[in-house]
Amino acid sequence: MPDKIFSYQQFFDFTKSVFQKIGCSNEHADIATKTLLSADLRGIDSHGIARLSGYIRLWNAKRINATPDIRVIHETASTAVVDGDSGLGLVVAPFAMQIAIDKAKQVGTGWVSVQNSNHFGIAAYHAMMALQYDMIGIAMTNASPLVAPTFSIDRMLGTNPICVAAPAGNEPPFVADLATTTAANGKLEILQRKNLEAPSGWIQDKDGNPSNDPHELKKGGALLPLGSDREHGSNKGYALGAIVDIFSALLSGANYAPWVPPFPAYVPMPAEQPGKGIGHFLGAMRIDAFRPADEFKQHMDKWIGGFRTAKTIKGKEKVLIPGDPEREMETERMQNGIPLLDSVIEDLKFLGEQLNLPFK
Amino acid sequence: MPDKIFSYQQFFDFTKSVFQKIGCSNEHADIATKTLLSADLRGIDSHGIARLSGYIRLWNAKRINATPDIRVIHETASTAVVDGDSGLGLVVAPFAMQIAIDKAKQVGTGWVSVQNSNHFGIAAYHAMMALQYDMIGIAMTNASPLVAPTFSIDRMLGTNPICVAAPAGNEPPFVADLATTTAANGKLEILQRKNLEAPSGWIQDKDGNPSNDPHELKKGGALLPLGSDREHGSNKGYALGAIVDIFSALLSGANYAPWVPPFPAYVPMPAEQPGKGIGHFLGAMRIDAFRPADEFKQHMDKWIGGFRTAKTIKGKEKVLIPGDPEREMETERMQNGIPLLDSVIEDLKFLGEQLNLPFK
Repeated sequence: MPDKIFSYQQFFDFTKSVFQKIGCSNEHADIATKTLLSADLRGIDSHGIARLSGYIRLWNAKRINATPDIRVIHETASTAVVDGDSGLGLVVAPFAMQIAIDKAKQVGTGWVSVQNSNHFGIAAYHAMMALQYDMIGIAMTNASPLVAPTFSIDRMLGTNPICVAAPAGNEPPFVADLATTTAANGKLEILQRKNLEAPSGWIQDKDGNPSNDPHELKKGGALLPLGSDREHGSNKGYALGAIVDIFSALLSGANYAPWVPPFPAYVPMPAEQPGKGIGHFLGAMRIDAFRPADEFKQHMDKWIGGFRTAKTIKGKEKVLIPGDPEREMETERMQNGIPLLDSVIEDLKFLGEQLNLPFK
Repeated sequence: MPDKIFSYQQFFDFTKSVFQKIGCSNEHADIATKTLLSADLRGIDSHGIARLSGYIRLWNAKRINATPDIRVIHETASTAVVDGDSGLGLVVAPFAMQIAIDKAKQVGTGWVSVQNSNHFGIAAYHAMMALQYDMIGIAMTNASPLVAPTFSIDRMLGTNPICVAAPAGNEPPFVADLATTTAANGKLEILQRKNLEAPSGWIQDKDGNPSNDPHELKKGGALLPLGSDREHGSNKGYALGAIVDIFSALLSGANYAPWVPPFPAYVPMPAEQPGKGIGHFLGAMRIDAFRPADEFKQHMDKWIGGFRTAKTIKGKEKVLIPGDPEREMETERMQNGIPLLDSVIEDLKFLGEQLNLPFK
């Protein structure tokens, strides 16, 4: 049975009304909706409207504040720390990114570490905010501990993504948005729904043995850092996840490592909390703080062109530029709508009934 | 036959005299020597004194300027672009890092992109310069194209390493220094010398087929990005290498992608040069531009302690903290000396004879 198709506008109206219903201001509901749905548009289905009910469950559990007083608690000319006041990361992160951009306008670069926030959707949304100002945008966040560092069976890190967005000239921007694990958790969820095995190198069981069971995380298993095992550089994936944790949480005063609050509201909070909420790190670098933006963009076009025309391995159509697949998906879905799995539709209908907001 | 052992002082005296012999000032020879030999101390044997003759061959080929006029060609309060004047990267990068540190003192962070440079040794040396100032240090560089992006047979990127160094309190600093490939080229060199096969997932042959031959690069093969193949996230390793290239070369005006000048002097220069020399990117973030340094360090100690005591997979001794193995190696080698392979000793003796500086 083919998935049902919805328009972006249908998603937008429902999602915004949900955020308003829990008490978000019109402005916050608008920003949260745009941030969340940018995932659906870009084809990152695991991070979009499919998570809406999860956010609302966190609000129900009093872990999300719908009317946060988001504020700067410390700053210098090029840096700031933002307290998200337990608000939606979907709102807190764009607020922080705007500060990074404003600082970059003044002194060339801006760097904002965020405490006391919640999940912020896809990193690309925030990093890409910088592009319109001819800046490079950087976004990262820590997340629920699901990843075992090399040689360990303990889940010590989240999938801790990093995104870097850089403008080009005639070419579309370069947008690399990557979890620091071999596979993002969303990919496991897809395999679970389809009843398929996971490739080797993605997960381990509770004793650290290789596993192909996509349900392994529910049984005490863990995701593996990018690189999969020591021989293939999992120590590097682990180090990258650690860097994200340090920038996002150690600099800001958020929780870190195994003490990051879990996203599913039914998972108990860690017994100990060394910080506040989860942490993000946002950065903006003005291109012309280094060289004229036009010059940079010309060279970005040449860089991108070089990769686009690189010789491919037999059977492979082309070399992909980071951001290409997501941008093509966005164009396609804006035009033709966004497919949704039955299970997600059911979940959204149920959410709508609870809030007296029909999902249609 | 066991390797011969040399003291750090023996290495230092010879290396410094070599740099002085080619015309470096006393100060530059001193910095270049410290930078280069930090690799030997930290156990990154491929990047230390074993490469000295390679640097001298580049000087012979008139690609390294021993008396460079290193200067800032553009700057803002938090950024600068440095022209290395074809100097040794071993000297240019510490110069640029010091500017990043000085800017961080003033406005919280400093970010310096470098053009017209050469190989800078290990990234960790530069990033770690920030630690003494209670700053986080960041260092990256592009390098000779040896890496094929996902789906390609063309060598489009270098091993493009990233290093992040962060201070701790009672614990030693966190120092993650990683090539954005599955394995660094130095590891292949070791396998070549020992006549061993390379693990699967490190390299491909000239047609993009998996290969275990550590000599594959000489036959048109390529190193693989971190992740090895698409199913295991090689698109992420490729994206990380690309980010390093953009920060190091597109921002500064250095060469990039397949147009980066090769390190071996016998490899012809690329026909086209869209920039000048190779590029680096150095950053410094003052901890107390975000939160009090003591607070940060306390939490870093807790973070590190958490990982040190994480449960291990049966048979594994402990979870490593990035920087631990290299620091332990440095202590050991400072005390007991540094082993050298016969082939490297021969190479250094030959270099010494050419320059009338006996290696002993």
